[in-house]
Amino acid sequence: MKFCSNCGAPIARRIPPGDNRQRHVCDSCGMVHYQNPRIVAGCIPEWEGRVLLCRRGIEPRYGRWTLPAGFMENEETAVEAAARETLEEARARVEVLDLYTLFNLPHINQVYMMFRARLIDLDFAAGEETLEVGLFDVTTLPWDELAFPTIHHTLRFLLEDRSIGHFPMRMGDIVGHDERAGFFPRRNRRQL
Amino acid sequence: MKFCSNCGAPIARRIPPGDNRQRHVCDSCGMVHYQNPRIVAGCIPEWEGRVLLCRRGIEPRYGRWTLPAGFMENEETAVEAAARETLEEARARVEVLDLYTLFNLPHINQVYMMFRARLIDLDFAAGEETLEVGLFDVTTLPWDELAFPTIHHTLRFLLEDRSIGHFPMRMGDIVGHDERAGFFPRRNRRQL
Repeated sequence: MKFCSNCGAPIARRIPPGDNRQRHVCDSCGMVHYQNPRIVAGCIPEWEGRVLLCRRGIEPRYGRWTLPAGFMENEETAVEAAARETLEEARARVEVLDLYTLFNLPHINQVYMMFRARLIDLDFAAGEETLEVGLFDVTTLPWDELAFPTIHHTLRFLLEDRSIGHFPMRMGDIVGHDERAGFFPRRNRRQL
Repeated sequence: MKFCSNCGAPIARRIPPGDNRQRHVCDSCGMVHYQNPRIVAGCIPEWEGRVLLCRRGIEPRYGRWTLPAGFMENEETAVEAAARETLEEARARVEVLDLYTLFNLPHINQVYMMFRARLIDLDFAAGEETLEVGLFDVTTLPWDELAFPTIHHTLRFLLEDRSIGHFPMRMGDIVGHDERAGFFPRRNRRQL
């Protein structure tokens, strides 16, 4: 951010009065331009125990496998965003089920929300930003070719929870960009 | 948004090539300025069965009661945001527990995340944007003086779940600004 979106004057970075963080501030019109994390919403589409993955046709992580997911838009809900991204990236129609993973990624200002989902039919295909779409058995997932730590941890939880037969919501923080990214689970504690 | 934050030229609103939504587009440098929903994170701080509420000292809804909550910032997690807002608005230190309500508000481009929380001590006080802070018994909550539908529905669920003795995560969409706001619950369906 170099110019004020309200008046077009150059932007300064400093801590406004009464605040405690550096902001993008316009000294001409006085506007403070706050920036906030964005939500990435997506699906884990399943069909008879297999999971749909997309091979990315865009950077970053071109050629790697991912679950269909993308930035939630204004004027939609997280469930609508997850279904829309699945339609755009995999041309797949899903019934969106439970929220399954909720990850904070504070180093890149994102919050991931991945939903379990049921494929409605097998009429899927690669979307514009996708090279190919495939259905994978959870025992033969392409672990070494996954695009992001969020996808890795979502699929790892799915595999674990398949073995115990139930799928509680999983929440945690992921810090780091690649295979060495740290995962810090948030344990659910129901007692007060 | 009237001017491009990248180059300072005037902004147009139109659908970019390959897109299907109106965006803020700069015809000078070519940048597309996306806008996305913001997360509001907050706490339901409890002490021996009572709930801490803040009376708002700012607009909107000046003078009405609310749970401590506010916009999640870059470089923090939702749990950190909820604890920070509770410290800022109620000068209260909490142990943040489970995520309890997750509401989409597509008409104002917000996603609420309210966490159950345990007050660490009774050393709370009104923050800069708060008129007063009080501990309320759940049977005598100020239902007619609550600030927002999100607060109303979070406290309504808390009251219901107290009576059954467990507190599953509650997810839904809220559409509308005042007491007549519609609430559309999202039922959890675990089966695939």
